[in-house]
Formats: sequence, C-alpha cells, structure tokens
Amino acid sequence: MNDDSGDVAVLMRLYQTILARRQADPEQSYVARLSAKGRIKIAQKLGEEAVETALAAVAQGNDALVDESADLLFHLLLLWADAGIRPEQVYAKLAAREGVSGLSEKAARKKL
Amino acid sequence: MNDDSGDVAVLMRLYQTILARRQADPEQSYVARLSAKGRIKIAQKLGEEAVETALAAVAQGNDALVDESADLLFHLLLLWADAGIRPEQVYAKLAAREGVSGLSEKAARKKL
Amino acid sequence: MNDDSGDVAVLMRLYQTILARRQADPEQSYVARLSAKGRIKIAQKLGEEAVETALAAVAQGNDALVDESADLLFHLLLLWADAGIRPEQVYAKLAAREGVSGLSEKAARKKL
Amino acid sequence: MNDDSGDVAVLMRLYQTILARRQADPEQSYVARLSAKGRIKIAQKLGEEAVETALAAVAQGNDALVDESADLLFHLLLLWADAGIRPEQVYAKLAAREGVSGLSEKAARKKL
Repeated sequence: MNDDSGDVAVLMRLYQTILARRQADPEQSYVARLSAKGRIKIAQKLGEEAVETALAAVAQGNDALVDESADLLFHLLLLWADAGIRPEQVYAKLAAREGVSGLSEKAARKKL
Repeated sequence: MNDDSGDVAVLMRLYQTILARRQADPEQSYVARLSAKGRIKIAQKLGEEAVETALAAVAQGNDALVDESADLLFHLLLLWADAGIRPEQVYAKLAAREGVSGLSEKAARKKL
Repeated sequence: MNDDSGDVAVLMRLYQTILARRQADPEQSYVARLSAKGRIKIAQKLGEEAVETALAAVAQGNDALVDESADLLFHLLLLWADAGIRPEQVYAKLAAREGVSGLSEKAARKKL
Repeated sequence: MNDDSGDVAVLMRLYQTILARRQADPEQSYVARLSAKGRIKIAQKLGEEAVETALAAVAQGNDALVDESADLLFHLLLLWADAGIRPEQVYAKLAAREGVSGLSEKAARKKL
C-alpha cells in the first residue's frame, strides 16, 4: 500500500476506476454488474448503505461506522458516475456554501 | 471564491470547520445545534439526506442530485465528527479495498 | 376513546380520513399540505419515517418504536392515497403470499 | 384463495404467522433466518424496503409500489415481533391521534 492510503485523493482515483469498470465484464466487476441493473437499483443500494451507516452510528461502534461509510461513499460515487456527474460539481457546491468566512452551513441551517 | 472551489480538498476544510463549529453557539450554528441533539438525530438526518439523494437520482435531475449529494456528504462528515472518526480512516478503508491492481470492488462484490 | 382503539380497523378509517383531507385547506390540514407538495415529497417523508423507525428499534426502546411505526404507517397510507392505490391491493398481495398453508414468506425468502 | 384476501385482517394473521415462524428451522424459514441475525439486521431490512417503496412511488408505477409496500409491511411486522410489540399498540397510537373528531393529523401536523 502506498503512503497516501488515507488521503482524500482516493476518492478521485476511485471515481476514475468506477468510470473504467462500468465498461467491464459484469461477470468480473461489481461496478459493471450494478450499473447494468440501472439507476433505480443503484439508488436503492445508496439508500441501503446509508441506513446501514446510520444504524452503525447508533448501535455498532466506530469500526462498523468506518466500514459502512466507505460502502456509502463508494455507492455515491457510483451513482454520480451513472448520472454523468463529476465529483468536482459536488465539491464546488460544498465550497460555495462555505463562503468567504468559512461558513459551511448557510444552506443547511434552515433545514433543522 | 478561490480557484480550488471544485477540489476534493473542500472535504478536508469542511471537516475542520465542523469540528470547530461543534463548540459554537447553537443559536448561530447549525452544526452546533444538530450536534447538541445527539447521535441519533444526526443519524436520522444522514438517512433523510440519503433518501433525498436516491429520489433525486431517479426523479429530479442532476442539479437536484448534486445538491442532495452535497447535503449527504455534509451530514456524513458531521456524523464522523460526532463519533470521533477522522476522514482519513474512511479513505484508508477505501484505499485498502483498491488494492495493488486498482480494484476497488473486492469487498463490495459479494454484496449484490 | 372507543373500545376498538387498538383494532386494525383504524387503518381503514385512517385511509378514508386521508382521502377526505387531501381536499382540505392546506392551512388546516397536514395531509393537504404534504399532498400539495407532491409525490416526491411524500416519498421523502416515508423514507425519513422508516429511518426513524429503524433507529428507534435499535437505540430508543419500544415507546419510540411504537410512535415511529405509527408515523411510518400514516405516511405509507398517505403515499397510497396519492398514488391511487387502495389498501386492499396491498393486503391482497400479502394474502397471496400467505398461500394455502399460511406461509407468508415464499416471496421474501429469496431476498436474504 | 379465500374471499377476504384483500382484507386488513391479513395483517393479524401475518403477525401470528411471524411469531410462530420465529421458532422454526432457519433453513426452512425466512422469518427464522432473519430473526436469528438480530435486531440490527431486521432494522436494516426495514430501511431497505422503505427506500425501495419510496423509489417505486416516484419511478416504477403502482404494481411495483404495491409489491414494495407489502414487503415493507411484512418487515415492519417482523420488527414488531422481534421487539415484543403487539400490533394493537401501534393501532391504538394511530387511533389516539384520530381523536373524537376523526382528525388523524394532530401529532403529525407540526412535523412538516
């Protein structure tokens, strides 16, 4: 393993890998297999992983929460790839909410 | 806005901002307010945002999907902060699954 | 309260009430207000209540689980009403799965 | 099929069947198998079925919505059984919200 294994850059590599795997043999690739099932099935999996993440957070401890969070991020990237969304679009949205003062919560504040 | 507004580094800044905001005045800060409500409430919000992301993906188009994805990531970071998980732990988990060949799907393959 | 307050018949009355309230003043009626927001918003609320039910089941005890289950059923009926589904269609589906031997799990068995 | 196949009474029969099946051979019974995996796994399945119901409601039509709703109700009953909740407790909660005037939405009104 390389020394940036805990680097956020893994999200960039993973998205590129997902793009490439979408064209792979569904027999060999989970990404290809799930993508072939279509958008609704990918969205189901995202929801399922989020429920597992939420339950891990209240009942299973941090090892499980890290595991489920990784599954959730993986399927979120897979959903973006299926929709033709580049991750940069989402990061730009988060950055825009940060604003000049570093406040990241303007948009979210009204929601609670 | 700075020129890295679409950079994945926003996730690092956002996590630091969330850590700082947890100590802020709940009247002023959504992060402080939600965190004060406790782990279960944060987990509820994560699940809620994931459902909204899934629904956007199948019925509302990419602008909505980008928006909801940003909300989902924001609340995932907030959940990690509440649990004392550093993002690097999750990125390392994703990197470990990538393995030497760039395969990111070993762990996930069994799940479909 | 009448003596059938714990009777499953409340589901029938509640569905009829929901049908009637859909035409009510949104200022006065939650059903009318949520219905006016459209199918996606109703589906979001269903997902949200299900997440709250799941979290209650693992972390909050039976009083909370009963409360959240009631919220979940209420929004499920509301979703059926919006889609023009009669509850009998769902009950017939469950009965069909029961089959002659009382087995209710044939259809579900393959899913785990 | 009997003539009450679309009757809400199926929910009562189904709950009794689930209680009985919890003691059955996990090799033969989905209920026994899922129950043996524990509360968290049942809660995961509830959340998963709710996401599928929500997605069906906005993207797959009423046949799918009826199917997924049946799955959701089945797993809700299974969760109640695991927690030792009698369905009457939930129906009583819904009836209490109805009140004398048939209003079923008092408790829910504040939530939107």
